[in-house]
Amino acid sequence: MEYPSLEPGQLARVQGFIENYRNKNQLKVDHMELIDPVQVAIDYADFLPTSTIPPEKLMENIEDLITEHIKYAPWKSFCRKVLNNEDIRRHLLVAPGAKTVHHAYIGGLLEHSLQVARICMSICDVYPNLDRQTLLVGAIFHDLGKAWELSGGLINDYTDEGRLLGHIQIGQEKLEPFLKRSKTLDEGLKLHLKHLIASHHGEFEFGSPTVPKTPEAFVLHYADNMDAKLNIIDQTYAEMDKTGQEWSPYVRFLERNVFRPQPTPDKTRQQHDKPENQCLLPLKG
Amino acid sequence: MEYPSLEPGQLARVQGFIENYRNKNQLKVDHMELIDPVQVAIDYADFLPTSTIPPEKLMENIEDLITEHIKYAPWKSFCRKVLNNEDIRRHLLVAPGAKTVHHAYIGGLLEHSLQVARICMSICDVYPNLDRQTLLVGAIFHDLGKAWELSGGLINDYTDEGRLLGHIQIGQEKLEPFLKRSKTLDEGLKLHLKHLIASHHGEFEFGSPTVPKTPEAFVLHYADNMDAKLNIIDQTYAEMDKTGQEWSPYVRFLERNVFRPQPTPDKTRQQHDKPENQCLLPLKG
Amino acid sequence: MEYPSLEPGQLARVQGFIENYRNKNQLKVDHMELIDPVQVAIDYADFLPTSTIPPEKLMENIEDLITEHIKYAPWKSFCRKVLNNEDIRRHLLVAPGAKTVHHAYIGGLLEHSLQVARICMSICDVYPNLDRQTLLVGAIFHDLGKAWELSGGLINDYTDEGRLLGHIQIGQEKLEPFLKRSKTLDEGLKLHLKHLIASHHGEFEFGSPTVPKTPEAFVLHYADNMDAKLNIIDQTYAEMDKTGQEWSPYVRFLERNVFRPQPTPDKTRQQHDKPENQCLLPLKG
Amino acid sequence: MEYPSLEPGQLARVQGFIENYRNKNQLKVDHMELIDPVQVAIDYADFLPTSTIPPEKLMENIEDLITEHIKYAPWKSFCRKVLNNEDIRRHLLVAPGAKTVHHAYIGGLLEHSLQVARICMSICDVYPNLDRQTLLVGAIFHDLGKAWELSGGLINDYTDEGRLLGHIQIGQEKLEPFLKRSKTLDEGLKLHLKHLIASHHGEFEFGSPTVPKTPEAFVLHYADNMDAKLNIIDQTYAEMDKTGQEWSPYVRFLERNVFRPQPTPDKTRQQHDKPENQCLLPLKG
Amino acid sequence: MEYPSLEPGQLARVQGFIENYRNKNQLKVDHMELIDPVQVAIDYADFLPTSTIPPEKLMENIEDLITEHIKYAPWKSFCRKVLNNEDIRRHLLVAPGAKTVHHAYIGGLLEHSLQVARICMSICDVYPNLDRQTLLVGAIFHDLGKAWELSGGLINDYTDEGRLLGHIQIGQEKLEPFLKRSKTLDEGLKLHLKHLIASHHGEFEFGSPTVPKTPEAFVLHYADNMDAKLNIIDQTYAEMDKTGQEWSPYVRFLERNVFRPQPTPDKTRQQHDKPENQCLLPLKG
Amino acid sequence: MEYPSLEPGQLARVQGFIENYRNKNQLKVDHMELIDPVQVAIDYADFLPTSTIPPEKLMENIEDLITEHIKYAPWKSFCRKVLNNEDIRRHLLVAPGAKTVHHAYIGGLLEHSLQVARICMSICDVYPNLDRQTLLVGAIFHDLGKAWELSGGLINDYTDEGRLLGHIQIGQEKLEPFLKRSKTLDEGLKLHLKHLIASHHGEFEFGSPTVPKTPEAFVLHYADNMDAKLNIIDQTYAEMDKTGQEWSPYVRFLERNVFRPQPTPDKTRQQHDKPENQCLLPLKG
Repeated sequence: MEYPSLEPGQLARVQGFIENYRNKNQLKVDHMELIDPVQVAIDYADFLPTSTIPPEKLMENIEDLITEHIKYAPWKSFCRKVLNNEDIRRHLLVAPGAKTVHHAYIGGLLEHSLQVARICMSICDVYPNLDRQTLLVGAIFHDLGKAWELSGGLINDYTDEGRLLGHIQIGQEKLEPFLKRSKTLDEGLKLHLKHLIASHHGEFEFGSPTVPKTPEAFVLHYADNMDAKLNIIDQTYAEMDKTGQEWSPYVRFLERNVFRPQPTPDKTRQQHDKPENQCLLPLKG
Repeated sequence: MEYPSLEPGQLARVQGFIENYRNKNQLKVDHMELIDPVQVAIDYADFLPTSTIPPEKLMENIEDLITEHIKYAPWKSFCRKVLNNEDIRRHLLVAPGAKTVHHAYIGGLLEHSLQVARICMSICDVYPNLDRQTLLVGAIFHDLGKAWELSGGLINDYTDEGRLLGHIQIGQEKLEPFLKRSKTLDEGLKLHLKHLIASHHGEFEFGSPTVPKTPEAFVLHYADNMDAKLNIIDQTYAEMDKTGQEWSPYVRFLERNVFRPQPTPDKTRQQHDKPENQCLLPLKG
Repeated sequence: MEYPSLEPGQLARVQGFIENYRNKNQLKVDHMELIDPVQVAIDYADFLPTSTIPPEKLMENIEDLITEHIKYAPWKSFCRKVLNNEDIRRHLLVAPGAKTVHHAYIGGLLEHSLQVARICMSICDVYPNLDRQTLLVGAIFHDLGKAWELSGGLINDYTDEGRLLGHIQIGQEKLEPFLKRSKTLDEGLKLHLKHLIASHHGEFEFGSPTVPKTPEAFVLHYADNMDAKLNIIDQTYAEMDKTGQEWSPYVRFLERNVFRPQPTPDKTRQQHDKPENQCLLPLKG
Repeated sequence: MEYPSLEPGQLARVQGFIENYRNKNQLKVDHMELIDPVQVAIDYADFLPTSTIPPEKLMENIEDLITEHIKYAPWKSFCRKVLNNEDIRRHLLVAPGAKTVHHAYIGGLLEHSLQVARICMSICDVYPNLDRQTLLVGAIFHDLGKAWELSGGLINDYTDEGRLLGHIQIGQEKLEPFLKRSKTLDEGLKLHLKHLIASHHGEFEFGSPTVPKTPEAFVLHYADNMDAKLNIIDQTYAEMDKTGQEWSPYVRFLERNVFRPQPTPDKTRQQHDKPENQCLLPLKG
Repeated sequence: MEYPSLEPGQLARVQGFIENYRNKNQLKVDHMELIDPVQVAIDYADFLPTSTIPPEKLMENIEDLITEHIKYAPWKSFCRKVLNNEDIRRHLLVAPGAKTVHHAYIGGLLEHSLQVARICMSICDVYPNLDRQTLLVGAIFHDLGKAWELSGGLINDYTDEGRLLGHIQIGQEKLEPFLKRSKTLDEGLKLHLKHLIASHHGEFEFGSPTVPKTPEAFVLHYADNMDAKLNIIDQTYAEMDKTGQEWSPYVRFLERNVFRPQPTPDKTRQQHDKPENQCLLPLKG
Repeated sequence: MEYPSLEPGQLARVQGFIENYRNKNQLKVDHMELIDPVQVAIDYADFLPTSTIPPEKLMENIEDLITEHIKYAPWKSFCRKVLNNEDIRRHLLVAPGAKTVHHAYIGGLLEHSLQVARICMSICDVYPNLDRQTLLVGAIFHDLGKAWELSGGLINDYTDEGRLLGHIQIGQEKLEPFLKRSKTLDEGLKLHLKHLIASHHGEFEFGSPTVPKTPEAFVLHYADNMDAKLNIIDQTYAEMDKTGQEWSPYVRFLERNVFRPQPTPDKTRQQHDKPENQCLLPLKG
């Protein structure tokens, strides 16, 4: 009997049994049937790596940050309208944070946005003159376009739009109608938000159409960069934990080997010493 | 009597007379009165350098190119709607091509767009497989955002929007409503046009949000670059003509000195040898 | 009568009176006498810009951070021994943070170290797996060598040592004896601290002898960079406040113009709207 | 029976038959005999990829361009003497345009030179003040040295001369005797031609011994670059046509993936839609 | 029977015999026993590539250079104390010059230091105003830290210290106690030596904490670079000798192919034409 | 009476007297007459900075090096023919080494060529396998083209040829006829010499048409670089001697400040401690 050949991304229902052959498990297929994901309800999270904290919970955490920090009604209303837009919300709940480098899992984009937002808020505690509210809006939406730049799903690849325009422009396009409709939001604030998104890559050589020109834009750029790097290290550590190494293999994206230093002895920390979860997010009580 | 101090960009009506003092002319002011450009109709072209060919004529030339090359009705209709939009047309007719570097005069943006379009069309004669029509639309509108990036007028400086977003994004924003409204234009063509604009700076290090990924995008990038460089040289030559030098002083933007080479003897050319006009545009009969 | 010529950095006691000449004040000198700073007790803070918060208070704030965050006795003892060393403390209390670029005033080094430490601690709240204690030690001492790299005083210039070795190596040399003497501190922790200092410039092209290889080193690098940039913007804003401009002149060190964006309307913030002090440090109650 | 081992570039006459084995064709060799290309007349075009248009025809096209555009007798005579030189002509008729990147086939150098010349002539229509004649000479001969830089033939590799000197210098050396002998050609024109060749790589970082300092040199540099890129894309498209993909695999030399955009619907174009030929050259009637 | 699995760097004593199988030698193992290098005296030079001239002889050559060139007693005494320190001498006698790139064999560090010192001394003959003595000390010790940056031995890899601090800082740390103890050596000379070491990588982008600011520092930087490059070429030539090629394969570290040029005919040289030894060191009589 | 206006580079004979006015000398001109350097024999060395050692002596030193090191008759004959060519010798005896940066005085090119040759010969003592003879020829002629790249004379500026082709190509053109005529010199040696000249700038980004691919080419590149840098420092030191500073002002070409370190006490050296001459050349007995 001939089975259909399987392409990457194709789902199939397989029936068979496991045999042990030369100390390795081998799958003997009895029956195989292609699955049309349009007809059968599929929870992709069953097949794909997902953020430790479920996307819905991450979304809730973001909404909590808005409630906590945004007091200016037009900003609050703007954020809610964007996040409650059905198309946007659906995309955000499954979007990865990148293709391969960091946060490359379901919920990755939300997790990244949340952590960047948290960093920004904590920096505002140190520099109270920063415009905390506009910065938070920028942090939450800085990578919004990534939800359309990448296809997500089983084959997480760039979309045509993603490759031909980039996530910065896609994000601006998605936010533009909401900005136009928000009559109470001052033009200066809208311009600042658009600048935060346009400049968050920080340097022209990274394809930033412009560079940070306000303190908030600098903070967003560093926060974005820092979370991406820490997420890569975190995943590298998870690999190193399997073999017990102190030094990682060469990490191409960081262009270096990563080291796990000896930690300061700390009773409070010890119970966290062997983290089971993949990401650095603090567990909520 | 005390005269009000004049700020850059302030217009004033002055009455007085010229005296000759030590072989130099000196203006003695009898009366001076500030002018409010809102109340008095001012033709800025009286005070500012302007393209040799009047902006209206350049616009006409662009429209002729559309008529000649664009046969696909949705593209033709799109171009006309953009160019006939009152706000856009008014901006285009006065916009400079850059702040200082090249085409820094009224009509400069139109002149640059026209020349880039002409280069692109002539390249299509050499490479007939190129999509001549989409390329022409891209050439005409690639720098559209510059009409809002620069203030133009007596003090031609960057606007807030220009500095915080850059002309690529401004241009995309201006075109977006026209693209949305054009129901007959295929999504793939719209995406290609947006890519042409997004990638025309060619390299990430020049703030290009993306890089050319289609042959048309490569051609547009080179055409844009070539016309900018040739316009700079042209203006440099105009300066050199005054002193009869073969070598220019150091041209900062080109990072070199420019040379006027000995021309091939050519009877046809000789009558053009002492160009009186500032730009290289061929004179229309 | 002939007065001695004054060199930069030379103090003198001058007696005379002020005359008004063509609407400008003019100093008429009756008597001038050079001052030998060795013989006369001089408080340089009378002649030099100083941090808004006095250096002693900044030092106290740093010591408070140690008390709050460092629980591991060997680290705590190490920090105290370094900060209580007479030579080090004396240098730290007057050292600027840089020659001209940022924190170029008495107390600038302490202010910068304090802010970097605060950023790091706030980042640890977001990423609880970081080694908060080693990171704090690194943050406080990352720029220690600057207290000997720059002469401080009336002519704040680089010292021979500063130019020939750089502050990273000077700092390591200053800490080395304290590390050697600390028998209880584990070698792995000492190495991590030395790595934090050695890598804090982040990229080889900025003269970093090595690059960050631990998450703590990444965080320190970003925190250092962020505080330097925000301090430059803060000083640029102070200049802009004098003229009421929205855009700064070109800031050479940032390679751009800086913008003061419209702030989100905020009752709580308004009372801080016209900051009288030069730096962004939150005022302590 | 033992067959001699075959080295890359070794020709052999083989006799045998084809068997089908597991759905693949397999060659069974009965007899094999090495061929000495010196003794047996070989038409390498039987074994090597060749330009769609035969090299002789390309040469004819170049000569037509000379006839059409060059009116100044000393230039015309110079071009003819170079192209009719037996050694040069023989090299030009087989030379590839590059080792692997673009035009890597017999006739590739002529095809590239012709297209660059065509671009330059079409740019002169847009900028009539350019020195059309010197530019054409420069375009035709800018890569002349490549005919000796690469060995061509079955193993198209760099020659010693090619690697140790580069094609710019080799080209200059080949042209020098012709320039010396041309007594009627003005020294200024000779210098301009040598500058066009010396600067055509455009930027020092690409090994250009000098950079363009005349408008003609800028145009030649862009034309050279543009044709190289378009030829690479053209070959990439040819590969993509086999699999029907919209996106190419990563193209190392362009450092990106290439996209085939949706074309503007065009009745005139449709008949060319599935190009059978490898290059973008317009077919002559 | 089961043998223990062998990890890289693990020594074992193996008993067995060689069989010929399909024209290849095959080792049949009868008995295998792990060796603990702590218990059994191992001469690693039996297993590892070693400099042609034995390390002890290289050390002697370095000491001869000191005797010949250093007349100032404090420098002479300093050099001897460092070289006679038991820990330092033991490390130096086995240290490689790099991990893989150049001098990657036992004695490599000494060989490199000796050649750099010889270059520097020969440059002093050409520029007699250079401070020959300080330069020699710098040349001998510029890479001292490498003896601890690399583990040497069977697995020559970076140590933790090496990766986290780099050899420049390690070297400075090793020399610091000797400098402190040398009461007769002037502070200015100590500072110059430290500058020579700190700046020898020459450019910030190569991780040099500072750049050369004295002529001696420039000379040391060039000498270091030159010897590294010549050693790489020397090893490349040794590989090429095996196959008789004129051109090397691509040498990644040099980013080019290396050529063996035709030598000037020279009777004196001919006897050296087929060097059997791996390095370019002149043989001592 | 009206005097003709003087342009830079114009010589004039002036008669008058010196007056003292407010403690400054003032020249009162009675008579001034322009000098035509074609009619009046001028020794430009009277008006221009010249190498400490006269150019004729430097030439002699170069010829001595040839005699000492070049044993292969075809090389020896080649060198002599080039140096004895009247046009070449005349240019070499007055040529500066650069426009402003280093060796910018009469004899500068010869001085630089001599020092580079000396460095190369001393490096051959350290690496005896190098081809000493070809390297010496390359060292002596590597910058030959500079004698035509710069005008020398009172206004030492680039010539047209210099700016449009660069000294590497000019040098190759000058040597080419001598190479062609030298029938006994092997083609491989000629190619090596041309490679040495073509690659001596070392890196593509410095406009090197090719990069060093033989050990001799590497050595020449480093020697060239080293002598240029040391000459700049030497001139900087001469300036510093006037004011007694330890640190130079910022040296733009070196992108740093230069330091004069404390020298190792040395009885032999002390007599040279206050060098009166401008260059580092060892004085001949």
